[in-house]
This record gives sequence, structure tokens and C-alpha cells, in this order.
Amino acid sequence: VVPTCERYAVRRLPFARLADGDVAFFERLMPGRVVTGEEEVKPFNVDWLKSVRGCSQLVLKPQTTAEVSQVLRYCHERNLAVNPQGGNTGLVGGSVPVFDEIILSTALMNQIISFDKVSGILVCQAGCVLERLNKYLEEQGFIMPLDLGAKGSCHIGGNVATNAGGLRLLRYGSLRGTVLGLEVVLADGSALDCLTSLRKDNTGYDLKQLFIGSEGTLGVITAVSILCPQKPKAVNLAFLGCQSFAKVLETFTTCRAMLGEILSAYEFMDEKCMELVERHLKLSSPVTDSPFYVLIETSGSNSTHDEEKLNNFLEQAMASGLVTDGTVATDDKKIKVLWGLRERITEALTHEGYVYKYDISLPVGKLYDLVTDMRARLGQSAKNVVGYGHLGDGNLHLNITAESYSHSLLDAIEPFVYEWTARCSGSISAEHGLGFKKKQFIQYSKPREAVALMQQFKAMLDPKGILNPYKTLPSAP
Amino acid sequence: VVPTCERYAVRRLPFARLADGDVAFFERLMPGRVVTGEEEVKPFNVDWLKSVRGCSQLVLKPQTTAEVSQVLRYCHERNLAVNPQGGNTGLVGGSVPVFDEIILSTALMNQIISFDKVSGILVCQAGCVLERLNKYLEEQGFIMPLDLGAKGSCHIGGNVATNAGGLRLLRYGSLRGTVLGLEVVLADGSALDCLTSLRKDNTGYDLKQLFIGSEGTLGVITAVSILCPQKPKAVNLAFLGCQSFAKVLETFTTCRAMLGEILSAYEFMDEKCMELVERHLKLSSPVTDSPFYVLIETSGSNSTHDEEKLNNFLEQAMASGLVTDGTVATDDKKIKVLWGLRERITEALTHEGYVYKYDISLPVGKLYDLVTDMRARLGQSAKNVVGYGHLGDGNLHLNITAESYSHSLLDAIEPFVYEWTARCSGSISAEHGLGFKKKQFIQYSKPREAVALMQQFKAMLDPKGILNPYKTLPSAP
Repeated sequence: VVPTCERYAVRRLPFARLADGDVAFFERLMPGRVVTGEEEVKPFNVDWLKSVRGCSQLVLKPQTTAEVSQVLRYCHERNLAVNPQGGNTGLVGGSVPVFDEIILSTALMNQIISFDKVSGILVCQAGCVLERLNKYLEEQGFIMPLDLGAKGSCHIGGNVATNAGGLRLLRYGSLRGTVLGLEVVLADGSALDCLTSLRKDNTGYDLKQLFIGSEGTLGVITAVSILCPQKPKAVNLAFLGCQSFAKVLETFTTCRAMLGEILSAYEFMDEKCMELVERHLKLSSPVTDSPFYVLIETSGSNSTHDEEKLNNFLEQAMASGLVTDGTVATDDKKIKVLWGLRERITEALTHEGYVYKYDISLPVGKLYDLVTDMRARLGQSAKNVVGYGHLGDGNLHLNITAESYSHSLLDAIEPFVYEWTARCSGSISAEHGLGFKKKQFIQYSKPREAVALMQQFKAMLDPKGILNPYKTLPSAP
Repeated sequence: VVPTCERYAVRRLPFARLADGDVAFFERLMPGRVVTGEEEVKPFNVDWLKSVRGCSQLVLKPQTTAEVSQVLRYCHERNLAVNPQGGNTGLVGGSVPVFDEIILSTALMNQIISFDKVSGILVCQAGCVLERLNKYLEEQGFIMPLDLGAKGSCHIGGNVATNAGGLRLLRYGSLRGTVLGLEVVLADGSALDCLTSLRKDNTGYDLKQLFIGSEGTLGVITAVSILCPQKPKAVNLAFLGCQSFAKVLETFTTCRAMLGEILSAYEFMDEKCMELVERHLKLSSPVTDSPFYVLIETSGSNSTHDEEKLNNFLEQAMASGLVTDGTVATDDKKIKVLWGLRERITEALTHEGYVYKYDISLPVGKLYDLVTDMRARLGQSAKNVVGYGHLGDGNLHLNITAESYSHSLLDAIEPFVYEWTARCSGSISAEHGLGFKKKQFIQYSKPREAVALMQQFKAMLDPKGILNPYKTLPSAP
């Protein structure tokens, strides 16, 4: 992987350089939890996609909020830059350093603090892995309000810091509604305790919201309080084939009306995605020969009612020709297999070579036009142009693959993709965030006054700019 | 009504005084929409509860964002204080002036800008009345994600500015999740356009969140983009009597498990509330002789399924003695009548004389203990001590009535009620906000560092402090 600073010709900001005395200080503060040595630090320097690479020499693994405070207080005083890192599953280069920022990993902050079965409110440290939290909750009859492909590695703190969307947003809403409280350490090391576990609290401004989705640039999230829904008693899945995108859309409108409150996911993928998943991961789909595939999940409290609703919908969809082929799953194992076809597209894509990833919000009706336009524009210069995503949320994942990274292909894609999105008043980042790779394009989705205000917040909360520098906000022109 | 500044001995901040030239300027800017004259201005000076009174001499009724901008730019330059006002239905004295602040009413900003039937996203001006929006949406098969007793008068801009909760929060979540975009005019008159209508947008910090719940102290909301759920095909209501609060709680747990995704409200009221509603409003309840009453609403897409779920639950609740008496409604008219018993408690209370209102978030298990403790503490010095509220959200409305306002009764209630709440890590304002009446008590629910940070935000966004002064944040000691 080419170092980020070389590929993108970024200039290092005048932070202090790590000195022996610094490492000694951290060793005293958290003995045995200070990682140095090029090989040991390497996995923390490179992102999951192997698309960006920093050159940090130091990873710190605090266990407590007090330790995070002490680290930041020290770094703030010394003017050392810090890169907070969760599971390092981000897709926009936000979770790894650009230069030699100290990596502050939440990996050892993995304690569940409390869970209340009456209210469904979970309080835990930021480094808890999403899947582990979900398993813990399932044992008590609850689930996490979010789910995503990276669940086996991603940390809840990172999920909150990036305002992760994922597969359950359609049903349980965004983290802006489900996160009830946060504990955050600010750039100067002071801790901000907004870790309430109340469903409603209107006492003053909702400070925690500023940290949700700020990608570690305003503070380090150390603990999270989150509202968890009851585990549904019945989950059903339908995996369907549609002959056109227009039919994908009509199927959505029909199923939303007929499934109503039990609809918990409406995902789509095109045939190219299916091809890649089958080729690279050796998965096989029970539904074939369709230009588009749709995954519909229902979650409810009464299996008889849910199955009746789903069957009524399927009958209607088949009878009216919206859907040409399909399969239904009610048992856990088959459900997992079918979800795998959709969830593992990202993984399949990495086998193609270099992947240019775009995560776009658009009016649903226009969602696939961008894929078609891009395919026509790039012709043979791209290996594959594929589209999939959370149709129910108006969220398209557009992915373009090539044997390896090339500036000329990037120039053919950008800013075309952003201009196209801006013309439809879409968002150039629906859920992945801006991180390092997208920060210069914020103006396609936000007016100048908004960006200026964001910069004021950043300057107020992190006057030295030590927290996750080079990320989220555009560099000064 | 005693003027607020006298009753509470507040000191006026050194803003400019309104001059003839100012009125002339506004008359030129919006001819015929400038209200002067003591009698005409009076309804804007007094809150709905008749508990606070300002002495403004001027009400402005802009129709456009550009006019709001011009008003604020002028006031900012002249150092004139401004009190933004929606439907003036607030309960904490946040919506009326304390001294002579200019009242900026959103009453004429009542245009619906757009509604998209595929996504369910409504965009409208801030002065649209909630009930009117809901009626408009119902014609298109949708509803507003919030509902509250004041719906006939309250403005959506005010709802958002106060982060209103209400009766549907249990089902559709808070405005922090459903509000997708805002247009806001800042203190210096500059407009901030964050009025996107996308389900997901992770491009930079979510600035709009800061204005949600800031009670007009950081900016004036001029337009709102909000995600609206589909109108449920079936709505059912059960109105039940319980013999103890423990049974109210157990009924909640049971119904949440059995009704699952169709549960849309779980409200409770004590027998005192029922007495007052019957006495002052001449309403009559079909369920009687119970120390507690519970209102359960279901909203779903299939009436047969919903009724089956509700009946199963009711059978179980009756058989196990959780509920001793009850009635069910499925037709609109009876549903409205039963909702009236709960929704009109606030109104019934105003007939009692002076009402001390508290809006508390607590762990549900302790919700009613505060009422019992308060009743014992106040004895004969209060006319009535009643409790009702959104049990499903852990939200208690504690109300204490007396013939008229008295300092000594207030001293018996406060800070006792706040200390009690703080001991349970509750919130001293679940949904009403802090406004003028509660701002000095913020520290019972927020740590000092959080309040200091809020003050920094206020200073940054409104350096002259002209926007809704004397509200939300505590005055400097």
C-alpha cells in the first residue's frame, strides 16, 4: 500500500514529533499496553480496504476513561496529533493516521457497564464489538438497534463516531435517535459526562449530537448509552428477483404498504454484485437470472401474523409480475445464508483489485440512474461498475473496480459522481462519513456557511487541531 | 398576571430600547404585519398558562426567511433583544418575553413547501400548525411523527425548537431522528440552509441538532424537513383501570411483549387527574373506581391481526388480575373521546388556580414514588398533587395546584423535586425544556462542564446574546 501522504501529496501539519520521552511517559501510564515496532503497529496504520496507509510509530490501548484523559492532556500539552481508532473498519480512510499521529485504540475498552431490561437501555465502553453486544442482548431478549456487515470487528464507539447506518436503520432509525448518552474526552483531556440513560431529556443543548458522526475530530467517545429494541419473536426473509429497477421500486412501495410495521429491511443488489459474490466467495444464490435482487426482512412479535402478511405480499408481487423468482426463509440458518449474499458484497469487491467506493443518498427513484450513467461513462476503463444498498433509506453503494489504483480513472469518476449527486440534491456520503478521502468534497452536499460553522466548532473544541487531523473538514484552501 | 420581572426579581440586560425609528424601519420592511399597541400585543406577552408576563411593545410577523434575516440583522446591529414565538403553547415560560424583547412570531410563515409520497418527507415553513400538517398528511396516507395536546395551536418550528416529545414518541422516536433538515436564521441575520430532505447524510457535523431543543436561543428556525410515517390502517385503543401503580408497570411489560411493534402509546393517569377532568371539563369516563388509569394505543397495517393481538393481551391482563376494568375503542369517534380524557388533563388543571408543573424523566419503576412523596410532604398546603404522563418513555408529569401562586409553596416544592430527581439520575425536564422557569436548575441534570460548553456555544452563535435572553441557560452567578 502506497503511503497516503505520497499518493495524495498531503503536507504534514506542524505537530510535535514523537520523542523517546513521550513513549516512556505512556509506558509508565499504561505498562504493557503501549505498542511500538513497525510490524506490530502496521495493522493499525493500514485501513481494512488497504487503500490508505499512515506511518504512526505508536499505538496506545487505554482501558479507562481516566487513561484516555491523561493521554489527551499530555498530547495536547505536547502538541502531538492523535488518531482515535475503533475496529478500523471504516471505508473512507478516517480510522488510520495520515502521517505519524499517535493511534489511540479503544480495543481494550470493552466492558459492558449496565443493561436495564425494563427500559432496554445498554451502557457500555466504546470498544465493545457490535456483534458481541448483540449476542449479549439476545440472551436477554433484546437486540442492538443497528447491524452492519463489519459487526464482527467494528466497535460501538466507532459506530457512533461515524454515525453508522447499516441494515436496521429502516426499522429502528438512526443513532441520532437511539443513542441516549455519551461520555467523551475532549482534546485537552477534560471528560464530558453526558452518559445519561433516559429516553427523554430536554435540559439544555444536546451536546452529544455534535460528537455523533464527527469521526473523532471533536473528542474521543469513551462510553455509550443506547436504547435497544426487543428481540423480534419472528424474523422472515424473502429473497427475490426483479426484471428491472422500476420493478424494484414498485416492489418497495407495495411491500411497505402491505408489510407496514413489520418491514425491517429492504436491500437491493444488481446482477454484477451477485456475480462477484458467487465468483470470489463461492456463495450460490437460490434465485438466479435476474438483473436485480431484493432482500426483504420482516421482524415482528407474532409469527403467524407475520407470515400471513408476507405471503399476501408475495402473492400479490408474483401475480402482478413485479417479482419473477424468489425464496423465503424463516429458520435462522437459511436467513444467515441469504443475508450473506448481500452483506458480503463489500468483501467480494476487495478481491477485484482496487475499489473506488461511493456511498450516495439520492431520491429513491433516481438511485440506479447513477450506476447506469457511470457504467456508460467509464466503458472499458473500469473492470466493474456495481450498485447495491439500502434502497429503503435512499442509500446507494456505488462501487467501481480496477486491477489497481490509477489517477486517470479517479479523474474520470470524480468530480462527475459528486456533481451528479449535487444536481439531485443528494448526499455524497450517506453513511460512510467523509474521513480522509471525501473531506474535500463536502461542498457538494453542504453550503459554504455550514462548513464555516463546522470549522468554528472544530476550532472551539480542539484549538490545536490534534484530534484526527486531515479528516472530515476540508483543509484550508 | 404579575409581570415576570417583578415576580422573579430579574434584572434587565443592557439591550437597546425600542425607538420610534425602529418601528418605522419594520413598518417599511413588512407593512401591515407589525403589531403595536398594548392590547394587541398582550396575548403575545402572556403564556398559555398565564404564569409569566413580559412587556414587549412590538410583534413582528414575517412571511419569509429573507424577512427574518433582515429583522435579525437589524436587531443585531441595534442590539435589540428578540423573543422568537411559535404557537405560544410552551409550559416553562420560554415563548414569551421577560422584559421588552421584540416578539418575532412565526404565525404567518405557514406554507407547506413540498411533500414526497414515496419517501414520506415533508418540507414546510416553521409556522405551520401541527394539526393542520397532520390533516394535510392524512389526506395523502401519512401522519406527523409527533402528536401532542397543544396540536391545534402549536407550530412545527416551536415543536422542533423545544424538541417536543408528546404522545407518539414511543412509536416513532424523537425529533432528533425524524427531523431531517432545518433552515435557521442566526443571531446576526445570516441564514443557514441545512434543509436537506434525505434519510441519511453523513457529510460533516450535524449542525441542525444544535438548534433542535435550543428554545430559540441559538437561532430562529424558519423551515423544517421531517420524515413522516405512513398512516396506520388500523388504530385501536384500550382504556383500562389498575388497582396499583405496580400493576400499571406490570401491565406495561406485558403489553410491550404481546403487542410488540403495533404498540404506539402507553399513557397513565392517577384518579386525581380523572376527578379533575370530570369536574372541570364535564367529561365522563367509561372506566371508574380505579386508583390508576392506563391508555394503550395500537397502530398497525392489518386490523384483524391488531385486534387479535390486543384481545390476547386484554384476556391475559384481565385473567391475571393486572387490570380490573376496561373498554376498547376501534372507531375514530370513541378513540377521540378516550384520548380526550388523557390529553385534556393540562387544561383541566388550569381551572384549579395556579399550577406548579414538573416534567420529569425517571426510571419507570420509580415514576410514581415522586408523586407519593410530594403529596406526603405538602399535605394540606397544596390543593392537589397529581401524576400522569408517558409511562412508556419514563416521563412523569407531576402537577401541584393551589388557589394562587405563593412563594412559600414553591419553596416547599423546589429544590426538593429536583434533588429527588437528581438522586435517581433523572432529568428535571423530560420534554418541556428549561425556558425561563427551569433554567436555574439545569445543574441537577447536567454536569458543570456540559453547562460551560453550552455557554460557549451560545457565545459563539449569538455573541450579543440577543436571541431569547434569560432563557435555557442559567444566568451568570
